[in-house]
Amino acid sequence: MRALVYNKQLHLETDFPLPQPQGDEALLRIRKGGICNTDLELIDGMYDFSGVLGHEFVAEVLQGPAHWVGKRVVGEINIGCGQCDFCMAGIPSQCRHRQAIGIHNHAGAFADQLTLPVRNLHHVPDTVSDDQAVFVEPLAAVTQILEAVHISPADRVVVLGLGKLGMLAVQVLKLTGADVVGVVRHEKQVEMLRRWGIPAVHKEDLEPERAHIVVDCTGQASGITDALELVRSRGIIVLKSTYHGTPQVDMTQITVREIRIVGSRCGSFPTALRLLEGGLVDITSLIDACFDFDQALDAMRYARTPGTLKVLLDF
Amino acid sequence: MRALVYNKQLHLETDFPLPQPQGDEALLRIRKGGICNTDLELIDGMYDFSGVLGHEFVAEVLQGPAHWVGKRVVGEINIGCGQCDFCMAGIPSQCRHRQAIGIHNHAGAFADQLTLPVRNLHHVPDTVSDDQAVFVEPLAAVTQILEAVHISPADRVVVLGLGKLGMLAVQVLKLTGADVVGVVRHEKQVEMLRRWGIPAVHKEDLEPERAHIVVDCTGQASGITDALELVRSRGIIVLKSTYHGTPQVDMTQITVREIRIVGSRCGSFPTALRLLEGGLVDITSLIDACFDFDQALDAMRYARTPGTLKVLLDF
Repeated sequence: MRALVYNKQLHLETDFPLPQPQGDEALLRIRKGGICNTDLELIDGMYDFSGVLGHEFVAEVLQGPAHWVGKRVVGEINIGCGQCDFCMAGIPSQCRHRQAIGIHNHAGAFADQLTLPVRNLHHVPDTVSDDQAVFVEPLAAVTQILEAVHISPADRVVVLGLGKLGMLAVQVLKLTGADVVGVVRHEKQVEMLRRWGIPAVHKEDLEPERAHIVVDCTGQASGITDALELVRSRGIIVLKSTYHGTPQVDMTQITVREIRIVGSRCGSFPTALRLLEGGLVDITSLIDACFDFDQALDAMRYARTPGTLKVLLDF
Repeated sequence: MRALVYNKQLHLETDFPLPQPQGDEALLRIRKGGICNTDLELIDGMYDFSGVLGHEFVAEVLQGPAHWVGKRVVGEINIGCGQCDFCMAGIPSQCRHRQAIGIHNHAGAFADQLTLPVRNLHHVPDTVSDDQAVFVEPLAAVTQILEAVHISPADRVVVLGLGKLGMLAVQVLKLTGADVVGVVRHEKQVEMLRRWGIPAVHKEDLEPERAHIVVDCTGQASGITDALELVRSRGIIVLKSTYHGTPQVDMTQITVREIRIVGSRCGSFPTALRLLEGGLVDITSLIDACFDFDQALDAMRYARTPGTLKVLLDF
């Protein structure tokens, strides 16, 4: 089969061995995939991974329990051991021995076929398109902010880093009724926020120490510094990013101003599917390009261009 | 009057001008004071302060409303403006224009007399000694941990940094019924924890990623690194310390492991007074020495010796 493989270098292979489903695994045929910043970080060597890349996808079930076969599905990316304290507590995303497809110890979705435990699958309703379904994973990650932190309609919320994830975050956070603003760096971002009725502001124009909640989607140390400047005392900074290296952080300010920092990663697929079914999130505007999977290497290069939003792969 | 004054250098003055109470202020005669690490950091130039040092004290009211005169009191250290959003919300400790006695824009308590708004005063019950009352401020700061974070009896809690504050923290946290351990560095700490029935452990002997809550009282960048190593995913790190400079922190780990960092500073004086009245905290063991205020310079030097616990000043 075709597979986009990273092994110190990135290759598009054409006769990669087909995966064989074991035990409770279903065999999936990938329909579409989406390129995430994590994929770009992986091929920069930020994590210790080699194998098939990719964790955002929509697929069709080829083999598995009868009632799943032929169904259109999305799949949770974390595969828990089922035994540890986190799995027993229903938090497989923090399993102590977890695999994550295309990220850690498990083949990813940028291939014609993928195996995944049946418990990871979620049926995609007919009213949700393939393009939308590819966004279920990052959209779930954004809804996790609302699981982690209570955002009240009376709160002032600032989103830093309006890339692929940040553009989902502003939309989901706005659903709370809170006063959400996005910090923009270029005109394209202004236009998109205008479409959704979300104020676009430049960081310099925001009064310091006023935001109840700052969500950092920048992936840069400067995002943390900016968040500390903007958040009010007793406010919350939500980290949705991974960072290169170990940033310097003014921890004294966190103590003195009694700030909270909340790390947030993966979220609930059913929640994301509900938002898509309800038409509550604009996905179309977030798609920058769609490449045939045979052009996956070009797609990865394109996805790296600054300011690019989601790049899809069509199988 | 006598006053311990920092003005780029530390002086014990003997004819410092007596403070004059204004408006809603009471005039206090200091009975005893306690030296805090913040005092030592101030004379190291870590903050921009000059004036009379000191914020831990017990005093007697010399002038003020009739029902206060002659009363033994402790005083909250933050003086709010009464106008800003934090003051209006009942959080003067985070007032946007706050003064803090002996720390920021207000004379401190290491002097024969001090003025303080009456609203900052709390009556000290007869069953609470002067020595105990001096600990109300740091004890309140420790009880703030329990305001900021829900600690369940089922939680594993690790306290890092068993100095003056850490030794109060282990005692207060143990009252929750949680499994509290203190990370020790020397034998004196082991003995004190034994007295209170709290397990003393060396950091190397703790299994990584097991603690639900880690409280960092170290004041050192290594404390944050150790806390990240010990806290479990979705766990909480409480910062009770200020830090020199801007430590490097592995923020990616906070995102990926969905850790929470909670800054915590000042707490409730009534809570601290209740704990002291109830005999729930051992203060006697925490007093290392008591100097006559005429020997305040010696006291400050002594307080700086590594491993020294609380040093009191007797007026």
